[in-house]
Amino acid sequence: MNRKIKIGLLGAGVVGSGVIKTLAHNPSIEIKKIGVKDLNKKRDLNGYVDKSAFTTNINDIITDPEIEIIVEVLGGLTPTKDIVMQAIQNKKHIVTANKDLIATYGAELFDLAKKMGVQIQFEASVCGGIPIINTLKQTLIANKFKKIIGILNGTTNYILSEMLNKKMNFEMCLKEAQREGYAEPDPINDISGKDVAYKIAILASIAFGERIKIEDVFYEGIEKISLADVFLAEDLGYRLKLIGMVEQEESGLLDIRVHPSFIKKNSTLASVFGANNGVLIKGDLVGELTFIGPGAGSMPTASSILGDINMLRAQLASSKNPNPLFVCQHSDYAKIKPISETENGYFLRIQTEDKSGVVGQVGTIFGNADVSIDTLTQRGINPDGSASITILTHVVKEKKLQKAISEVKKLNTIKQVENVIRVLE
Amino acid sequence: MNRKIKIGLLGAGVVGSGVIKTLAHNPSIEIKKIGVKDLNKKRDLNGYVDKSAFTTNINDIITDPEIEIIVEVLGGLTPTKDIVMQAIQNKKHIVTANKDLIATYGAELFDLAKKMGVQIQFEASVCGGIPIINTLKQTLIANKFKKIIGILNGTTNYILSEMLNKKMNFEMCLKEAQREGYAEPDPINDISGKDVAYKIAILASIAFGERIKIEDVFYEGIEKISLADVFLAEDLGYRLKLIGMVEQEESGLLDIRVHPSFIKKNSTLASVFGANNGVLIKGDLVGELTFIGPGAGSMPTASSILGDINMLRAQLASSKNPNPLFVCQHSDYAKIKPISETENGYFLRIQTEDKSGVVGQVGTIFGNADVSIDTLTQRGINPDGSASITILTHVVKEKKLQKAISEVKKLNTIKQVENVIRVLE
Repeated sequence: MNRKIKIGLLGAGVVGSGVIKTLAHNPSIEIKKIGVKDLNKKRDLNGYVDKSAFTTNINDIITDPEIEIIVEVLGGLTPTKDIVMQAIQNKKHIVTANKDLIATYGAELFDLAKKMGVQIQFEASVCGGIPIINTLKQTLIANKFKKIIGILNGTTNYILSEMLNKKMNFEMCLKEAQREGYAEPDPINDISGKDVAYKIAILASIAFGERIKIEDVFYEGIEKISLADVFLAEDLGYRLKLIGMVEQEESGLLDIRVHPSFIKKNSTLASVFGANNGVLIKGDLVGELTFIGPGAGSMPTASSILGDINMLRAQLASSKNPNPLFVCQHSDYAKIKPISETENGYFLRIQTEDKSGVVGQVGTIFGNADVSIDTLTQRGINPDGSASITILTHVVKEKKLQKAISEVKKLNTIKQVENVIRVLE
Repeated sequence: MNRKIKIGLLGAGVVGSGVIKTLAHNPSIEIKKIGVKDLNKKRDLNGYVDKSAFTTNINDIITDPEIEIIVEVLGGLTPTKDIVMQAIQNKKHIVTANKDLIATYGAELFDLAKKMGVQIQFEASVCGGIPIINTLKQTLIANKFKKIIGILNGTTNYILSEMLNKKMNFEMCLKEAQREGYAEPDPINDISGKDVAYKIAILASIAFGERIKIEDVFYEGIEKISLADVFLAEDLGYRLKLIGMVEQEESGLLDIRVHPSFIKKNSTLASVFGANNGVLIKGDLVGELTFIGPGAGSMPTASSILGDINMLRAQLASSKNPNPLFVCQHSDYAKIKPISETENGYFLRIQTEDKSGVVGQVGTIFGNADVSIDTLTQRGINPDGSASITILTHVVKEKKLQKAISEVKKLNTIKQVENVIRVLE
């Protein structure tokens, strides 16, 4: 395989720099052109790449006849989508780390790629360095998948880990994460769960062979998580994690969603701490597999991008036809189960007035709504004279639980339903 | 990809039956012939495969011009090696779960396969269902690997887990494992560490691109592990596991070995219990990745075999040339570091007479031999009047430690050096 391949790189930020450094002395992969917004921006890339490779003329890159692969690490949707579509029109293979792009416009992109006979590879778009996407498409291909459940966002896992370890509240941990470089200056996509929604949509699409409309994926973030939630979880034998999950029912319906969850403290995923990611896959043949590793970062993400480039290069060296296992084949859309129809255990933290009979009132409402209670604890009086009730329910349909909550909220004795967190068994 | 592929299956035991059941209704992969020793053996395969597929004429299978892939699940070395060599001579691609074969005769097999232009795929040979081999060869290809460390044998991990959980000694746990089907009637290959030696040799060979002579791989089993070792490990903040590991030094020398090890209790591998396997890979780009899952069993192993078959089929559909990433390229032999030159911490359990001054004598010998002691504990008197000393050393070269031990054994006051276990940081 002595064939040298030339690539065009779009973006020279954190991930792009990792790619440039990794390929600096590679004899078989050459970065011919690098597209950037500002040629004069200071970049710590001396000695890794010739300055003449940088250009602001993106069109010049995606139409270069010598360039076979476009590596897109610009991120975002605009103008990235249009650029990638044009590159595909020009018969360039695409390697991308852009989860937003794949989750939002995957259908259009893959349709066009199929038409033009090129491939889009996106191992780096989910869980950074963890080799999850190509593994689902290749080595595990014979499995009928049942479930994927994962800690797919390093920022939020870092924050939740620090809340547990240092007993600091959400805001303090977020600030620390920003200082340490684990959270963006604008962290909304991470902490809101949206980033995880993109990722679980991509994984679900591959595992179940169906397209997912990203707007159908329910997500809830960790903004409302308090220290009390984190430690009550531990007391009850669970750990609080932001979970992305997808499960296919017998009917074919996909239960796909993202939310803070209580997971069993002795489970493998509960042991995934800090900025690490973890993914558990359940297949009919293989049973349960767990992958743990760095979900982001310059070099781990470059590892996945380089893997995709090498796989494309190896294919192009042996054949003009795309390897069918490397190509997305599906085009139908999945049927998604509404969150109100899902079934979960629930943890509730309710602030009440310190009056006798409150527990009885709440219990009656839950009973009438057909929500069975596993444990109910009334804790000591708060400084403001209110009392706290925590409830762990048995598994029940979400809409029954929501109905019970709306009834509870009407009680005069209830000050606030402070948080409701789903429990995954 | 509508091309149907015909395969020949050698062996219809536990793994072979899994392959037959999985492929029963597969429209694109047909098991044309199944080689067995005894046609009349009762097999629970009614409805999965036509009886006429079974044959005792192996030659008829490996020369069948319609058969493109031979799936070998006979196990063992004789006559398997000769059969596989002949199949390759007949230009058949090979898919195998046979770690003994690949680790022992890999060099010959891969050389012949290269000459004949066919591929040998062996994902199932290491860690059953865990997708480790193809992942090293493909998605992680851009990494320079530094280290692999794993729990690679389900039988021994089950036994050690049960010793910890049920406080039963090695012999009782082994019997239980045999009853539960987690240990063979003749468990010697598993408990001696030899099975792990095969597996770490295969992983090392792929990760470091060098051939390994299996006889160069140091291995030690768990036969001598007592309950005391298991629980003293926990007391000291470690967990006792049978570890296969390989690490490449700056000089290129490979430190590859298999032995019971103390590993940090809070490490991910320490949380791998029962018959599960776990592998940690350290790469220069990706950092640390951990894979956890079923290391054996009919269906998990079938998952990996089917993955390999599908990958071969996809390749054959798109090209006549083998994909370079799927093919073993290396042919040089690794230089292996002798165990006496390795550096470790050590845990020692020594039985002494209950006489004053023993601790001082031992301490002096260790000091003179340049072995620095981290903790030394003299525990209560045993029923026979002897006393127990446990020592945890700092990291030291193995030959220094062995010299100290041989001096200690000469002391009149020392009854027995009961166990010496390496500590991995």
